[in-house]
Amino acid sequence: MGALRPWARFPLLVVGHLLALGIGAAVFQALEGPPALRLQAKLRTELAAFQAEYGACLPPGALEELLGTALAAQARGVSSWGDGSEAGNWDLPSALLFTASILTTTGYGCMAPLSAGGKAFCVVYAALGLPASLALLAALRRCLLPLLSRPGAWVAAYWRPAPARAALLRAAGLGLLVAGAFVLLPALVLWGVQGDCSLLEAIYFCFSSLSTIGLGDLLPGHGRGLHPVLYHLGQLALLGYLLLGLLAMLLAVETFSELPQVRAVVKFFGSSGPRTAEDQSGILGQDELALSTLPPLAAAPEQTPTC
Amino acid sequence: MGALRPWARFPLLVVGHLLALGIGAAVFQALEGPPALRLQAKLRTELAAFQAEYGACLPPGALEELLGTALAAQARGVSSWGDGSEAGNWDLPSALLFTASILTTTGYGCMAPLSAGGKAFCVVYAALGLPASLALLAALRRCLLPLLSRPGAWVAAYWRPAPARAALLRAAGLGLLVAGAFVLLPALVLWGVQGDCSLLEAIYFCFSSLSTIGLGDLLPGHGRGLHPVLYHLGQLALLGYLLLGLLAMLLAVETFSELPQVRAVVKFFGSSGPRTAEDQSGILGQDELALSTLPPLAAAPEQTPTC
Repeated sequence: MGALRPWARFPLLVVGHLLALGIGAAVFQALEGPPALRLQAKLRTELAAFQAEYGACLPPGALEELLGTALAAQARGVSSWGDGSEAGNWDLPSALLFTASILTTTGYGCMAPLSAGGKAFCVVYAALGLPASLALLAALRRCLLPLLSRPGAWVAAYWRPAPARAALLRAAGLGLLVAGAFVLLPALVLWGVQGDCSLLEAIYFCFSSLSTIGLGDLLPGHGRGLHPVLYHLGQLALLGYLLLGLLAMLLAVETFSELPQVRAVVKFFGSSGPRTAEDQSGILGQDELALSTLPPLAAAPEQTPTC
Repeated sequence: MGALRPWARFPLLVVGHLLALGIGAAVFQALEGPPALRLQAKLRTELAAFQAEYGACLPPGALEELLGTALAAQARGVSSWGDGSEAGNWDLPSALLFTASILTTTGYGCMAPLSAGGKAFCVVYAALGLPASLALLAALRRCLLPLLSRPGAWVAAYWRPAPARAALLRAAGLGLLVAGAFVLLPALVLWGVQGDCSLLEAIYFCFSSLSTIGLGDLLPGHGRGLHPVLYHLGQLALLGYLLLGLLAMLLAVETFSELPQVRAVVKFFGSSGPRTAEDQSGILGQDELALSTLPPLAAAPEQTPTC
């Protein structure tokens, strides 16, 4: 790999990514194509059976029209079955959850603006709110990362591993902590609380929320006729989970991106010309890494900022 | 604002954000509550009318069962109306689009894994693919940002604004370019090509895709009975748009986060103790900013890496 011409590395990385995209698509196609076709076939069979049995007394197109309205309404987030447990679609906890899903860019999509004013406000709110959230996260990072490195310092004082290994252990520890506390634990809670989803589905939901992918195909408690108070408590719990979990995940990503090993990989693929002035400068802070500039543990400031 | 005690600034920022979350939720509730209730009422009226007219010849619950199946299928991304234009839900362009929506964390949700294997693969693929994508973006940044600063250098040489203003102009220029080329232009194209969505809806879709929110309530061309070739071309165009647009947006965000004004705001809210060693170091590279470490234009390396 080291013998690769510099100019060849970056295109190779891009090609590798496009290949990974294609391979992922092929695997999803193989895994998901048959179940989707089976579900579609089942639905069509039911429709045909319904038409066959009762089509005589229905005018042509009446059923399709009704189905069309119901499906279109659901696509806009409006459920066909209304009962007391969901007092309107846009009660305050639901609106808070929607707003948080915008600000964390998760975007579940189970609720979405219907009106032109709502769509316009959505764009403006996100255009202003996302940069503000990024600034908040940057400020949070300044406070929290030094605190997080303390456990690492204790471990280092006890075991005295080499600095590179210390950084790797610290990052791995933080990664395991975040995965355990913010994916596995909430998934276990969700699985215990909701009777009808498997542990895998709970993990899938937590991971999809935390990574801000937010597919929104499984939303806990949705439309199950729960007691309103429980349902709203669940929504507020999800809200807190989204906000805290995103923060934890970003801190973990930052910590990993500081690792010398990661920086070396980025540098390997990213600079293809002769060594530049900054490569030779050697000051870690000047290393062009997408996410982090925190000086390494050894050079930590003597006074920790108190937030 | 400068008179604020240091320890008060950060909590103030957090409180401000929570307030903004609450205010956004209230505005959405006001804008969206009534339309959602109206749509729900309309749907219920249609259901009731249908039952009243034809309920006599339908056994009780038969209609609800059929509707339930159709709605559940749609929630899983399977459409009730199948015709030749969408040969299966998971054809290769659709699978590619889904995979790209995972890797860019957009996560539209109109297609989602049904099977346990698909969900598990989704988690593993994202857990591996997202860090790899971040590394790719970091490497890309090393190559592209110096290239992007060249126009800024020409402008600076011609007008000779003050350095801080030059950086601001450069960032604003890049922001306008990204907004124009990656939000407005694609929105205009989409609006022209699709007859039944307004310009606002097109802008809303482009913005939601680019910011990776990905609500997925409007997806171009979906289920409109387009010619298959056109539909797939449209999907591939959307795929390219997602990947390139995300890159452009991240570069713009990086450029803005380098601005002295932005760094000052982050520092103001982020460090509350006495000035630390790094505050006094003065090397911009050591400034703890979430996203960027690129040295400012004045200190740009003499040799631009050739990708």
